[in-house]
Amino acid sequence: MNQHIVPAPKTGGPVEPSALEDLVLASHILAEQGVLDGYGHCSIRHPHAKERFFLSASLSPAVIATGDIMEYDLDSNPVDQRGRKMFLERFIHGEIYKARPDVNAVVHSHSPTVIPFSVTTVPLQPICHMSAFLGGGVPNFEIHDAAQITDLLIRDNYLGRALAHSLGSFNVCLMRGHGSVAVGPDIMTAVYRAAYTEVNAKLQAQAIALGGPIRFLSQGEYEKIEGRGDKNYERPWRMWKERVTKP
Amino acid sequence: MNQHIVPAPKTGGPVEPSALEDLVLASHILAEQGVLDGYGHCSIRHPHAKERFFLSASLSPAVIATGDIMEYDLDSNPVDQRGRKMFLERFIHGEIYKARPDVNAVVHSHSPTVIPFSVTTVPLQPICHMSAFLGGGVPNFEIHDAAQITDLLIRDNYLGRALAHSLGSFNVCLMRGHGSVAVGPDIMTAVYRAAYTEVNAKLQAQAIALGGPIRFLSQGEYEKIEGRGDKNYERPWRMWKERVTKP
Amino acid sequence: MNQHIVPAPKTGGPVEPSALEDLVLASHILAEQGVLDGYGHCSIRHPHAKERFFLSASLSPAVIATGDIMEYDLDSNPVDQRGRKMFLERFIHGEIYKARPDVNAVVHSHSPTVIPFSVTTVPLQPICHMSAFLGGGVPNFEIHDAAQITDLLIRDNYLGRALAHSLGSFNVCLMRGHGSVAVGPDIMTAVYRAAYTEVNAKLQAQAIALGGPIRFLSQGEYEKIEGRGDKNYERPWRMWKERVTKP
Amino acid sequence: MNQHIVPAPKTGGPVEPSALEDLVLASHILAEQGVLDGYGHCSIRHPHAKERFFLSASLSPAVIATGDIMEYDLDSNPVDQRGRKMFLERFIHGEIYKARPDVNAVVHSHSPTVIPFSVTTVPLQPICHMSAFLGGGVPNFEIHDAAQITDLLIRDNYLGRALAHSLGSFNVCLMRGHGSVAVGPDIMTAVYRAAYTEVNAKLQAQAIALGGPIRFLSQGEYEKIEGRGDKNYERPWRMWKERVTKP
Repeated sequence: MNQHIVPAPKTGGPVEPSALEDLVLASHILAEQGVLDGYGHCSIRHPHAKERFFLSASLSPAVIATGDIMEYDLDSNPVDQRGRKMFLERFIHGEIYKARPDVNAVVHSHSPTVIPFSVTTVPLQPICHMSAFLGGGVPNFEIHDAAQITDLLIRDNYLGRALAHSLGSFNVCLMRGHGSVAVGPDIMTAVYRAAYTEVNAKLQAQAIALGGPIRFLSQGEYEKIEGRGDKNYERPWRMWKERVTKP
Repeated sequence: MNQHIVPAPKTGGPVEPSALEDLVLASHILAEQGVLDGYGHCSIRHPHAKERFFLSASLSPAVIATGDIMEYDLDSNPVDQRGRKMFLERFIHGEIYKARPDVNAVVHSHSPTVIPFSVTTVPLQPICHMSAFLGGGVPNFEIHDAAQITDLLIRDNYLGRALAHSLGSFNVCLMRGHGSVAVGPDIMTAVYRAAYTEVNAKLQAQAIALGGPIRFLSQGEYEKIEGRGDKNYERPWRMWKERVTKP
Repeated sequence: MNQHIVPAPKTGGPVEPSALEDLVLASHILAEQGVLDGYGHCSIRHPHAKERFFLSASLSPAVIATGDIMEYDLDSNPVDQRGRKMFLERFIHGEIYKARPDVNAVVHSHSPTVIPFSVTTVPLQPICHMSAFLGGGVPNFEIHDAAQITDLLIRDNYLGRALAHSLGSFNVCLMRGHGSVAVGPDIMTAVYRAAYTEVNAKLQAQAIALGGPIRFLSQGEYEKIEGRGDKNYERPWRMWKERVTKP
Repeated sequence: MNQHIVPAPKTGGPVEPSALEDLVLASHILAEQGVLDGYGHCSIRHPHAKERFFLSASLSPAVIATGDIMEYDLDSNPVDQRGRKMFLERFIHGEIYKARPDVNAVVHSHSPTVIPFSVTTVPLQPICHMSAFLGGGVPNFEIHDAAQITDLLIRDNYLGRALAHSLGSFNVCLMRGHGSVAVGPDIMTAVYRAAYTEVNAKLQAQAIALGGPIRFLSQGEYEKIEGRGDKNYERPWRMWKERVTKP
């Protein structure tokens, strides 16, 4: 919880407008689906500077525009704050980008059917082909193990590192009593994973309620799905985009 | 259930239009979320007169405008009724303002996932950081203890006082077979609490359905969250406002 | 299942346009809420002719207009068919109007949370003050008792009479594996009851899922509520109307 | 998983524009209801050429237009691909049309309450008159029985044939960990069955949660319903059409 005065880091340089537009779109898409509430956020790594990332000022994802996007270094110091309010939990993003060179987009959400899995011992498991990315396990970050009594927020780099450590090499990590993070090599994949983590949680909760034993994807199945190249994330992306951009 | 002819109380004086606009907005926001149905209502204390409060005429919160707002004294007598129909349950508001000088806004709702908790012995408990305000307990007002056989409505000051007594120093009080009240130092906080009481009820119901043991926020955690100053209620408020005001 | 050629009955005479407009509005309101699906219907008794009622041609309630409303006698013969397709189940309405002089409006729905109660032994019971009209019991019409193997539809006066007999003097009657009927002295009350039967079913299903014992309204409570005059049905009606008529 | 270079098959000849418009409408209707997500698809057999069928290019059903519809032979080879991306799972359609001369429309969906039934041993059964078409059993295609470790997709004619074999002479077939297919003699019937399979799944899941024993339709009942001619599919179709075409 230590905060230092640091000189503002330098920018990673100019970025294609389409990259920021996609980040805004991602925020609007996930808000429209109820995956992001008023408090979630998503970010992308700077496409041309591995040590920088983009994240909006502290605003609900449903209402942001490209002008609200700020640039940060991986310690989550702003390049050019200009008085804008920052997310307390920006350290989630910086520390995951540090720990995971393969990750270029991060979604932090409080999606409603995922939170219940974070407070029980019932593991979230892939129930259909569309959520194979959950295969192999979904870790649950217990902040109490890292820092005892907290307000559950990732308020500094230390807690960000602890969360990134729990995430390990997985695609999704629950955060006990709080929400989750979903990551990906690009924004479209991260959005897909955040959306389908919620879908899988709903399907699994419904299957549990039916009362019988549940057959999840086998290891062979989810590995086969994750191993293939034709994931077609752009198919729902186009539909989701039309939904949030139609007049 | 006694009703007297009383001389109309004096007004607490003029009020900024923005205060009444925010009260209307609060009503529309909570209606849009399904927290307020056709019968709920919310009020604010007069910002310049501790002994007066503002509450709309007896209309569904989704359809009210600033012209529908009426002024009351804390016995819930109207300052200037002009033939407008009043909420039977206006005594909820008056008596809570009497008992709780710290409270400046009250929401009374029948929010759908909260009512079930009011008729069972399963306690509503804070399951995530966003509902820490439920920590320490959510009392359940049993009207039968106060007045035996009733129609469950808070029709007079006696019942209003009994409800305020159940609420005590808490933020939320269930009302058995009826709904709940959420209070706060300002309208934004009361709206947040009403909205997130429903969110917490949904999360908890879903967690119960998963079947495993549930880890709620610990006392240390919810006290830490409630003790901090940066609650950021204005973040979802702005989003909610955009949702109900967009053309 | 007997069908005779009958001479067309005479009209009950002209009716105020507002009565038919309210019937259309009722249909749109209940469709908007998901209480009426593509197959439900509602009717009113002719305000000036006790032996006639109004019911739309066989169309989904969401799409009807006043021009689609037809007049029937209580044997459900059309006054002026003009080639319009009639609901197979018009006998529900005619036979209930015959058996219940106090009833002036009937809603037949397949509302989604009510059907499950029709196929189990778990009784639907009033869980909050808004559904006190369910007090005293909700009968469940078992069509097999009346006619053995059927397609579950009320296709003739015999089955209509059997359903009306199950309804008895109650406000709502379930229909096993099919849906329900809700009745009232006027269209506003019948709409309210149809809507809040679904609300109560949701609340009760949710309370059951919480796992604890449930405290329903006591007999004293629901009788007190049903016995009072100030039911305020016009409050949600106005809100619901605004929702379906806004441009 | 064998793919050969094949000469493009000949067209089955011109088709009425209304047939393709109805296919687009069906896609939009089922997307609006949440029965089709971003990945589902539906097809019709060529009305004048039993050995050809129509299916859109690989796009989300919510966004397709008539210009996106492609023609295929029953081995799922495109008549005129023109560089358009094809659904990997087009073999579902071709092989069902081969095996079922009575089928002229196929819907493949991941509808959310149906998937849970595909991963448990709890059988989906008709709970109300509107889902009598589920009577007699709903088979569940276990792809592991056909091809051991797969990505669960129907990627070739072999898997399409195996699915068609599971479907047999039924109207609906679940696909374990994946979704379902619903078929019919025309597009309106197939859409109805896809929509009401999801409705039935919701009703049954809710009935199970109530905890009591469930009375499903008897064999006599569902056979009587399925045997009659007046199914009225056009009634909800008109309503659904208005919903997706209103400006």
